Amino acid sequence: MIQGTFTVSNSTEPILLNGHWTTSQGTTFFQAVNPATEELLAGKFPVSPWEEIDTAIHAAAKVSRQMRGWPGSRFADFLECYAKEIEARAELLIEAAHAETGLPVSPRLKDAELPRTTNQLRQAAKAARTDAWRNPVIDTAAGIRAMLGPIGPVVVFGPNNFPFAFNGIVGGDFAAAIAAGNPVIAKGHPCHPETTRIFGDAALTAIRETGMPEALVQLIYRTSHADGAKLVSDPRIGASGYTGARHTGLKLKAAADAAGKPMYLELSSINPVFILNGALQERAAALADEFSGSCLMGTGQFCTNPGLVIVPTGETGAAFVAAVAERFAKAPIGTMLAEGVRSSFSTGIRTLIDAGASLVTGGQAGGGKGICFQNTLLTVSAKQFLTNPGVFQTEAFGNGSLFVLAESVAQMAEIAESLEGNLTGAIYTATTGSDDADYATIEKPLRVKVGRLLNDKMPTGVAVSPAMNHGGPFPATGHPGFTAVGIPASIVRFGMLMSYDAVRPQRLPHLLQDKNPGGVWRKIDGEWSQKDV
Amino acid sequence: MIQGTFTVSNSTEPILLNGHWTTSQGTTFFQAVNPATEELLAGKFPVSPWEEIDTAIHAAAKVSRQMRGWPGSRFADFLECYAKEIEARAELLIEAAHAETGLPVSPRLKDAELPRTTNQLRQAAKAARTDAWRNPVIDTAAGIRAMLGPIGPVVVFGPNNFPFAFNGIVGGDFAAAIAAGNPVIAKGHPCHPETTRIFGDAALTAIRETGMPEALVQLIYRTSHADGAKLVSDPRIGASGYTGARHTGLKLKAAADAAGKPMYLELSSINPVFILNGALQERAAALADEFSGSCLMGTGQFCTNPGLVIVPTGETGAAFVAAVAERFAKAPIGTMLAEGVRSSFSTGIRTLIDAGASLVTGGQAGGGKGICFQNTLLTVSAKQFLTNPGVFQTEAFGNGSLFVLAESVAQMAEIAESLEGNLTGAIYTATTGSDDADYATIEKPLRVKVGRLLNDKMPTGVAVSPAMNHGGPFPATGHPGFTAVGIPASIVRFGMLMSYDAVRPQRLPHLLQDKNPGGVWRKIDGEWSQKDV
Repeated sequence: MIQGTFTVSNSTEPILLNGHWTTSQGTTFFQAVNPATEELLAGKFPVSPWEEIDTAIHAAAKVSRQMRGWPGSRFADFLECYAKEIEARAELLIEAAHAETGLPVSPRLKDAELPRTTNQLRQAAKAARTDAWRNPVIDTAAGIRAMLGPIGPVVVFGPNNFPFAFNGIVGGDFAAAIAAGNPVIAKGHPCHPETTRIFGDAALTAIRETGMPEALVQLIYRTSHADGAKLVSDPRIGASGYTGARHTGLKLKAAADAAGKPMYLELSSINPVFILNGALQERAAALADEFSGSCLMGTGQFCTNPGLVIVPTGETGAAFVAAVAERFAKAPIGTMLAEGVRSSFSTGIRTLIDAGASLVTGGQAGGGKGICFQNTLLTVSAKQFLTNPGVFQTEAFGNGSLFVLAESVAQMAEIAESLEGNLTGAIYTATTGSDDADYATIEKPLRVKVGRLLNDKMPTGVAVSPAMNHGGPFPATGHPGFTAVGIPASIVRFGMLMSYDAVRPQRLPHLLQDKNPGGVWRKIDGEWSQKDV
Repeated sequence: MIQGTFTVSNSTEPILLNGHWTTSQGTTFFQAVNPATEELLAGKFPVSPWEEIDTAIHAAAKVSRQMRGWPGSRFADFLECYAKEIEARAELLIEAAHAETGLPVSPRLKDAELPRTTNQLRQAAKAARTDAWRNPVIDTAAGIRAMLGPIGPVVVFGPNNFPFAFNGIVGGDFAAAIAAGNPVIAKGHPCHPETTRIFGDAALTAIRETGMPEALVQLIYRTSHADGAKLVSDPRIGASGYTGARHTGLKLKAAADAAGKPMYLELSSINPVFILNGALQERAAALADEFSGSCLMGTGQFCTNPGLVIVPTGETGAAFVAAVAERFAKAPIGTMLAEGVRSSFSTGIRTLIDAGASLVTGGQAGGGKGICFQNTLLTVSAKQFLTNPGVFQTEAFGNGSLFVLAESVAQMAEIAESLEGNLTGAIYTATTGSDDADYATIEKPLRVKVGRLLNDKMPTGVAVSPAMNHGGPFPATGHPGFTAVGIPASIVRFGMLMSYDAVRPQRLPHLLQDKNPGGVWRKIDGEWSQKDV
């Protein structure tokens, strides 16, 4: 990403403000870089000054007021139409995202990420249509009824690593916020602005086709850090969602927290994987394949990339490290998303080595196409890890991993106990049951450190399932009770709890009235039911 | 409350640390004051230094680890035994609380608050026993299952105004935290330390009777502000609950937020009541009785006290103001909880008058028994209110209220739109339906500003109902999605979301296994069910 000062000769791309593509009043712009060619891409995108951010907030607040009490079906119609409009622009989107991120068209952007994104919009639409996310509760004896309602305008900051599925204008947070009945101000990631612009075009078309208020979805590409903080803490905003680097996220969080505005964050995770002795004895080669595939997929640029692996020391462990190192050395070196990602990865690897980790393979920039870094494997003894667990949990976001060689299962459990909060944690065990006792020993401390516990499975797949937890204790996220992926749980984050006490029957929202023609699941006097009261 | 420096001759009450009543190492102490007599009470209670707070955290963290995976029935047994032990100490508790708070024995402490408190413990026990709060979700196709588990050690700060029902060692947050399987570090309120001490005695007895770990409940009475902030942000802590003054709460929240520790707060609320024209025409005298009763109950020292009333201007409104003023002048002047409460109330009243409100009745300290202030009624025009809605929403916590005289329903709606977040909001309407259109006009903006909307009902009763919302948008609380009262919703706050991905069936927690012998409600593939998978 290159930034420049705006002059009259540089016409920048417009921003999407209150239903119109509007020329930014900003005086600076930026351009994305094709990480595979390291060439500057043509589009110039503006850094929005506060005045136009304020205009966006004003419009969002107005629309939020206007939409109070609207049925979920209106939001569902929009989400479904948007999915259709995205599919109509699939080729454009894939081409733009490939140029801006270096991610392969197939098997990634076209076959996996785009279908996942439209599927998520449609799942959110279904939840909005059925009101299932609102968790209606009826206490007939006390005369009190409650459900969730929209929290107010939502700001969504998307990350660099999923130009579709987590993009601020179309990803999980976006879909959840809209399904809950809120307008969204999307902040595109500066690594893929053209991709984001095309989504803006699809969203505006869908807004018009479904007769939604024009400010339902607005788009800015970039702000100053100070204006970002001002945005998430503005009194007119309901909540924000952020996926990205920890330091930026924490600054935004501090601003939102001080203003009492909920902000859901996904900040960092090294996703520990414990591989027990029985599993290694049984299927070391298969595990080396499975691990290498997971760790190097997408050049390791997944929130759930396995960045820390704990294996038994001794011959078995050493052989496994060697097997992985061999695969790492042989595997193609992927292109990274941006120079910033490469330099962060390099700094992370350097920090681990400086702390005492040994380099097994990789460790240098280059070796592949465009912006890249060798597939990198490090090792450290458990004893040394435990002398400074903080530094050995430094996130090196990319195609690398740190292996910890543990003397005993007790030491593995001690490592689990020393972990910071993570999105995921995995334990690999023998199919014979020989690791059962050890599994139990490690599961206990690991369970409370991670949002999602996996067994004999790598963490990199994040299914859009109602039982998914793409969340976890700080610093993985800001609150261990919420998930960014999975419906309806992710939608609940953008709702406020609304209780009705002694409100006359005809004045209750339809969902809380005695009749339940839609057969929505409601908790009536302690029992879940689809029936009338 | 009086604070002094500890000398050898002053023996202070011990604190409850890791299952033992332990002499504090603190060098300062405080004594509570009987607000009805303004006399110092005998007990000297310590201000705990960091070293002993650290000891409490260490013990709580250890116990939290020990209790991982324990069945809810163990916590239920404790909560039920605790309720029984409280009942065995009812006379002592009521006597102590009456002396420390000035609240009447009857109809308050004995008949209402203590039974409410033990009932809440028993409701929490029931939820813990049945695991109903854990919200189990099963996705058979994806092989992912999820539920809530304990978040870790919980710190609870109780307020001054409910020595039983919100006390840090027995109230709503406490019951919820224990039901979720967490140990609690209770911070007693310095206005009623002896009451809190007796609860500590009952809790320790119940811990021993039910064989629970001794550090399940610990008690300190006071800390420095800096140590309070250190406590809620300690890495070993899971979450905190706080009910009390806004400025202190916000300082603690800032510390907890910076450490990524969830903190649930109840900070302030003026609980707007809109009385529409038809209701006044129909039953002005009855409404004046109802309002005065609600506003003066407990000397107005309720979180849900109606501190802002919006009525139509003109003859009807003026007559209603006069009717309320008459009742306020005639009603006994209650004793306030503490000198700090009286001075804050006085300052609040002064701020409203300085901003332009007119004093109708009251306005002076004194007139009753001990620490007190006259029942105070103020008025302001809607026009003036809207020139500076911030200042006219100053909380005057006590036996007073500000009436706003509105020219029109549109102006009432404008006031609703200008409100900060509140716990409650009420609209009074004619029984004939003549106010129906006006109700709809005001309900729309009011609904999103309050956690609980009431219709023809005063907000002061807060039923322990599953549909209750004792919460609301900032600055009423820190997050509009949570309630401090109502089970299971209040328990959910002290849970973390735990997803199990591809975990072998026998390794799943019982609640997520295929068999469901307890008939717990679980969401299986989108449908709620009490059956086996």
